[in-house]
Amino acid sequence: QTIMIPSKLQICLLIAGYLTYLMVGASIFQVLERDEDRKQQAAVLRMKEDFLQNFSSLTPVEVEIFVKKLTEAVRMGMDPTGNENSNWDFSNSFFFVGSMLSTIGYGNLSPKTAGGQLFCVVFALFGIPLNIVFLHHIGKILSLLCERLAKCLYRKGVKKKTTRVLTLLFFLVMGILVFICVPSVIFQVMEDWTYSEAIYFAFITLSTIGFGDYIIGRQQSKRYFPYYRMLVAIWIIFGLAWIALLFNLLTNLLEDPDAKPAEELLPVKPS
Amino acid sequence: QTIMIPSKLQICLLIAGYLTYLMVGASIFQVLERDEDRKQQAAVLRMKEDFLQNFSSLTPVEVEIFVKKLTEAVRMGMDPTGNENSNWDFSNSFFFVGSMLSTIGYGNLSPKTAGGQLFCVVFALFGIPLNIVFLHHIGKILSLLCERLAKCLYRKGVKKKTTRVLTLLFFLVMGILVFICVPSVIFQVMEDWTYSEAIYFAFITLSTIGFGDYIIGRQQSKRYFPYYRMLVAIWIIFGLAWIALLFNLLTNLLEDPDAKPAEELLPVKPS
Ligand SMILES: [K+]
Ligand SMILES: [K+]
Repeated sequence: QTIMIPSKLQICLLIAGYLTYLMVGASIFQVLERDEDRKQQAAVLRMKEDFLQNFSSLTPVEVEIFVKKLTEAVRMGMDPTGNENSNWDFSNSFFFVGSMLSTIGYGNLSPKTAGGQLFCVVFALFGIPLNIVFLHHIGKILSLLCERLAKCLYRKGVKKKTTRVLTLLFFLVMGILVFICVPSVIFQVMEDWTYSEAIYFAFITLSTIGFGDYIIGRQQSKRYFPYYRMLVAIWIIFGLAWIALLFNLLTNLLEDPDAKPAEELLPVKPS
Repeated sequence: QTIMIPSKLQICLLIAGYLTYLMVGASIFQVLERDEDRKQQAAVLRMKEDFLQNFSSLTPVEVEIFVKKLTEAVRMGMDPTGNENSNWDFSNSFFFVGSMLSTIGYGNLSPKTAGGQLFCVVFALFGIPLNIVFLHHIGKILSLLCERLAKCLYRKGVKKKTTRVLTLLFFLVMGILVFICVPSVIFQVMEDWTYSEAIYFAFITLSTIGFGDYIIGRQQSKRYFPYYRMLVAIWIIFGLAWIALLFNLLTNLLEDPDAKPAEELLPVKPS
């Protein structure tokens, strides 16, 4: 059983196509959402300023109404403290599009206009399959690494069964190290989280659950190094591919407990 | 090509196992999170009460600090208006677990304690594959419906190619009607959303993006009919299976544009 390595041209075209799709989407969302977001953001700040000027002459009931409105605004993604940059700058819009197509969907940013929401549906309908194709290719590369190890071990005279177990162990241990443990150390330092919070964030992100309770790059007091977001994006892409293989492995084990695990490591059919 | 129908016993066991897993998980999360959540919720309400009693004697800077703290509390999932029921009652906990295992991850509720976060990782690691197996079976049932239609048409003398196109159309049109258009009418009425917001919610949920900007059952002014949440849960289960088939179809089209689409409707290999 061998896996076809996609040609370099194919891979380059796919990456270019995927990035173009992301960038075009990010730009369109910016156009659709930016004005409305600014308007809403300005309204919240104005409301707060009004309140700050008059609070001492208000009744408790009026203050309570202010608290209620403030709560609703924060839930809608506004920032009454006025510290954050524009929600829909290109970097944020790009991150939003990526989080949508990977189906992580953190939700710290989401479209508010009817146009943005409609575009969301159409864009994701074709973008999610495109993202799946992209991750399939990354997954193939990871599988190939495992297969190479297996071949190498086999050539050295290791038994087939032992080879299978060792390959599986390599996939699990290396994967957990490279995609969960090591990035979590970086998150712990960069985001001021505890290590267990960082592990939780890494898992919730790569499993595509994406609660959005922890998001990178939002500490206002912190200075992030220049390529931090880009590195995180690369981590997400490879990590998603790895965890998809892991879930595939576990799903196959659940569906057919007698199956041989290492074969499931290579879910892509030979072609 | 025929699809093996899983035996009724298998289906019953799977449903029972899945429901048990969900219910055990929901209970454990309750135990782990309820106290901490109550504490935090009480702290926010106390902070607000303190503020309401003293605001007229505070300086604008102190008021600004209050706004900042309030913003943080709302982002953490607290409710300073004090209207909502306990976050971690059984119904909410169950819905949380379901949203996690389906990887929708709305994020309106998420674990705050280190224990809850750790349990989250372990619970989802095995729960997500279990959920995938479960949805596979639902998907098989949906595929089977399409296959029956195809056989019926074929028997009536319709050409193979026409049969394929008609089956595909049936899958798409009926699916969009049953899983998107009709439920959206209900959401529009029940949640006071516009129809386009309801469509957006339906798609964001079934695609498992789950931004969490729209969530059902949160309108405090509305009375929901008794089995509303249960109906929504059933909609999600069948809808997720349907949209998984749809994405599978689109993924296959992207990977191999020459493939015949109706065969991809039946992604489950004959066995
Ligand atoms: K998600
Ligand atoms: K999500």
